[in-house]
Formats: sequence, structure tokens, C-alpha cells
Amino acid sequence: MAPIRNARVLFNSVPKGFPVPGETTVYDTTQTIDLDTVPLNGGFLIKTLVLSVDPYFRVAMVPVSSSGIYCRIAGFGVAVVVCSEAPGVEVGKHVYGHTILHQEYTVVHGLGALQLMERHPNLPWSVYLGAAGMPGQTAYMGWKEYSSAKAGEVVFVTAGAGSVGSMVIQLAKKDGLKVITSAGSKEKVEFLRSLGADVVFNYKTNDTRMVLKKEGPIDIYWDNVGGDILEAALENAAVHARFLQCGSISGYNSAQESSKVFLLVCLSITLHVHGVIMAHLPLMKYLPEFYATIPAQLASGELKYPEEVTRGLDKVGDVILSVQKGTNKAKAVVLVAEE
Amino acid sequence: MAPIRNARVLFNSVPKGFPVPGETTVYDTTQTIDLDTVPLNGGFLIKTLVLSVDPYFRVAMVPVSSSGIYCRIAGFGVAVVVCSEAPGVEVGKHVYGHTILHQEYTVVHGLGALQLMERHPNLPWSVYLGAAGMPGQTAYMGWKEYSSAKAGEVVFVTAGAGSVGSMVIQLAKKDGLKVITSAGSKEKVEFLRSLGADVVFNYKTNDTRMVLKKEGPIDIYWDNVGGDILEAALENAAVHARFLQCGSISGYNSAQESSKVFLLVCLSITLHVHGVIMAHLPLMKYLPEFYATIPAQLASGELKYPEEVTRGLDKVGDVILSVQKGTNKAKAVVLVAEE
Repeated sequence: MAPIRNARVLFNSVPKGFPVPGETTVYDTTQTIDLDTVPLNGGFLIKTLVLSVDPYFRVAMVPVSSSGIYCRIAGFGVAVVVCSEAPGVEVGKHVYGHTILHQEYTVVHGLGALQLMERHPNLPWSVYLGAAGMPGQTAYMGWKEYSSAKAGEVVFVTAGAGSVGSMVIQLAKKDGLKVITSAGSKEKVEFLRSLGADVVFNYKTNDTRMVLKKEGPIDIYWDNVGGDILEAALENAAVHARFLQCGSISGYNSAQESSKVFLLVCLSITLHVHGVIMAHLPLMKYLPEFYATIPAQLASGELKYPEEVTRGLDKVGDVILSVQKGTNKAKAVVLVAEE
Repeated sequence: MAPIRNARVLFNSVPKGFPVPGETTVYDTTQTIDLDTVPLNGGFLIKTLVLSVDPYFRVAMVPVSSSGIYCRIAGFGVAVVVCSEAPGVEVGKHVYGHTILHQEYTVVHGLGALQLMERHPNLPWSVYLGAAGMPGQTAYMGWKEYSSAKAGEVVFVTAGAGSVGSMVIQLAKKDGLKVITSAGSKEKVEFLRSLGADVVFNYKTNDTRMVLKKEGPIDIYWDNVGGDILEAALENAAVHARFLQCGSISGYNSAQESSKVFLLVCLSITLHVHGVIMAHLPLMKYLPEFYATIPAQLASGELKYPEEVTRGLDKVGDVILSVQKGTNKAKAVVLVAEE
């Protein structure tokens, strides 16, 4: 068979601001491939079926070398195997992963980050890039791992009409929560109602703070947006609220505020932050074991403790001052009387 | 028996800046009490033995009424019962709680927030205000509930010589962690070494960032301080780090930065913040159940999904732009080829 076109998309130059189709990215049709004779060298040839285009692409649009040579685009995708010399990777099987090139045909050596995937007979492959793929999995795992959701609680989901947000909303409804969610268009608001969300509003035409004040406080906040809506969520958070920072990307590029840096770190390394105060800790869960073990260990010297004892109720004022100034040497206690 | 002195400490006026002993707080000896004839009215009379002086006292030093009448000071303390008409509260028993007045004798009606307490024979009552009391319990419960500590991990504890910090350090060593900790004096540094901490430094004479860069990254940060040291900890945090914000009080009074507001909210309502990205989620724990359930529910329509399919590899550049601008209507996928 004669060589055929093997079209691809190339990342051609670094965008100043938004990417420019045809300039920062180029659709290139000059490349050809002969499907019968292309050397596989123990690998396999795939035909790309469907590709995902995600927000993170923009972050990857940077110079890849000091020589200014740019590169092919890869992302989440599904492809079918059309020729193979690789054991276990038969023709007709499908592969899924985040390293699929934006190119019609590709020779692959070893599965690497790709995995063999079977499709549900009633689902198109495209869904495996959304609700049944990385975004849906992020929603599913993040919800199960971090939400600590309980029936009757209130969750607020931003960008609810996205592939992550819409999955979170539906998982929350299955778990018996009251769901508040927002989107930026009439169509998306209608879609959100169809998901069964309890309170749906267009954040462009409604005051988020008013909605949350009326419908909150929030036990769980799933954040795909960040910025001012995050601040509004903070102002309406319940005690022991869980904030799941999944995408606070908007505005990060120019952000200077510490709170954004803080949240960026939370997001990028999956930082877990917990407020710790006695009033909100589960006393019944821990105090019996605390009293059963700790005093004896303190008495035996197995555990040490710092203490600065001042004698006399008349010294309380001085001790208060030393604690405020931090000049006390250890835990300050005032001995008022012997028995 | 004749009436005897019943000295007390009164909160007399709101401090401008630091409290002033004898002025903002007054030791008052004018009050008397007759221990034999004081009416109990079904309550009990306690003699104060030991009182705790804590940093939070300053926060309570505000006008209690618009008429400018100020009040007695109460806090954590231990007292002994000297007379009683209350069933179950026998003479000679001890009570502990955060409502003990700074006063020699007090008539109490009902235990309320007080609890009957027995002392370990080898521990003075003062320890029940520190390591065996509220600070020790905060450390114990916070560590068990939120640290998710694993042997071999690295924890950084600020204000390690305090009653909270020193307990955290010792719990961390018992759990097999490497402990980095800081204090502000030579004596405190020596005490920290005696606790078995692995890396001890004086933050006034050492660069915290240098220490953490060399000895980190940090898996757990127990923060009693906040401010610049918190920033240094953030810069040296490991993936999946847990930040336990127990006291970031320093500097809050004048703080304007959002990060401090954010952390103040985390602390005051015990907010839990989790970064959520696919790369740090436990795939092996959830993906089998995800694939076993979600695709079938999407196929049956039990779960809905948003999707915007564009046909043709040549449209990738346009789709990239629409995703960056947010003009896409749903999860963006590009259909490259049919099988």
C-alpha cells in the first residue's frame, strides 16, 4: 500500500497571552506513513481515535530547549492498535493514557503510561476522556478520599457543569447531601438542574455571598475556580468544613497574594491543612485513652513536661504579662494554695 | 469561725497593648468569706489549688458590657471541695475545668463545665493544667486525629518547648519520626535535646530555611507560631504534607494578608484543606471500583456527563483556544477518526 497522510498538530511557538491557532499551534499534513512497511522494532502501531483538550495544555506551552525547538503535543487520548509486534498488545485492542500524540498514527515502543482499555458497549470512547476518564476519576477519588461526606451535609461545587464538577454533584446527591452549585450560563444552569442539584445559580447574575448565606453554612467546598468565590466560601464555612482545592487556577498567573500562593502549594503538592483546637477535637474518642496512659507516663518520667510554677494568687497579674510577652520559660501555672 | 480573707484577681480595665499588673488586672483582698456559714444552697464550696495562665487570656480582655463594668477572671484550674450539699460531690474531692475563678474560695452550683478529677500519686496537680491537661490533650488528640504519621517521616514542630510542642515531639518520637524543632533560648534548646528531638535549633540565631532545606522536606508541620516560619515550612513541604495549625496567633492582631486570614479561619473553625490532583490520589485503592461501577452508570444514564465533541484533528488549535478562554460548553474532546 502506498504511504498515506499522517497529519499532526505541532506546538510551534510560545503564546503571548492566549494561544493562536495556526501560529502557536500548527496543523501539519506534510508527514506520511506506510502502514504496511513502517518498522515496528518490537513495538506496535496505533491509530488515534479521540483526544482530550484540557486546561493544563497552556502550562505546557513553554520552550522545550534553549535552541528554541518546539514539539509535538501529547495528551489524554484513546487509540486502536492496527499493527503489532508486541506480546500482549493485539491488533484491535485499545490503549488509553496521557501520552497519546496529537497525530493520526504513531508507533509505540512499550505501553509505558498507556493502558489497555475495554469500552462499555453503550459508551463512546470520548466519555473515557471525561466522566469515565481522568476528570471523572479525580472527582471520584477526591470525593471518596477527602470529603468525609455525611448525609444531610451541605456541599458547594463551583464550575458544576464541568466534567469534574458534574461528577462531584452526582456523587454528593448519591451520598444524601444538599448540593449548592454555580455556573456561568443559562444552558449550564439548566444542565445542573437536570443533575438534581438542590440550589443552582448563575454566578454572573447572582451574588454568591447572598446565596451561601441563605443556603449555607458549607460543610464541604469543592473548588474548581478559586479567587473571590473561594473567599465567599471561607466566609460561609461551617466548623470542621472540608475544602477540596481541585482547580483554583483562575488568576494564578498574576497572583501575588499569599493566600493564593498558599492554595497553589496546597493544590500542587496535595497539602492537607487542619485547624487544631481543643473545642473541635473528638474528646470522647481520645480522652479515656489519654487519661489511661499519659499521666502515668508523665509520672514515671517516660514523658517529660515543661512547667514554670509561680506561688501566690497575687502574682497572677505578673504571670499574665509574662505569658503575653513570651518571657515565661515554660507552661505557666500559679500555685494558689496547698491542700 | 470568723470570716477570713477571700482574695481574688479582677479584670479592671482593657489594656492598651500589654496588660499592666495592678492596673488592668488588680489583686483584691477586700472580700471575706466565713467557711462555716457561707450559704451553699445545694451547691458546694471549693478552695482553689492551682491555676493556669494561658495566652488566650488576652483575647478575653475586652469590655464585658457597655456600662464599663469589668469582671473576675476564670481559667483552667484545679480546686478541692471543702463543704458540700451537692450529691456526688464529696468534701475532699477535686474538680478540674476551665471555669475556675482566680479567687481563693468559690461557691459553685452544679458541676457545669467542671469535672471530678483524680490525681496520679506521683504527679502534682499543676501538671493537670499542662502536659496532662488542655495543652497536652490538644497535642495528643490533634496528633492522633490529623497527623497520619508514619514511621520514618519528618515532622517540624515550632515552639517545641511549650506544653503543646513538647508533647507533640515526644508522641512523634514514639511513632518513629524524625523530629525537627525550634525554640528561642539556649535553655529551651537544651530541654528539646533532652526530649530526644533529632534536629534542634534556635530560630533567633539560625536560618530556618537553611535547616529545613538540609533536614527536610517536611511530611508534617505542627505550627504553634505562624508568620515567616510557616512560609519557610510551606517552601519545604513534601507531597501529601499535613499542616496542623494549632497556634498561628503571633501577628494576627495587625495581619492584613489573606494567607493569615485563611489560616485564621482554618484554626478558628478547624477547617480542613486538601489539594486534589490525580497524580497524588491512591489509584490502586479506587480505580478498580471506579471502572467496575461508573462506566455502567454513565451508559445507563444513572449518571449524566457533559461533553462537547469536535470532529477533526485540524480543529485541535481552535479547541485549545476555546478551553483557555473558557468558551467551550462542556468537557472538550476531539474526535480524530472512527474505527
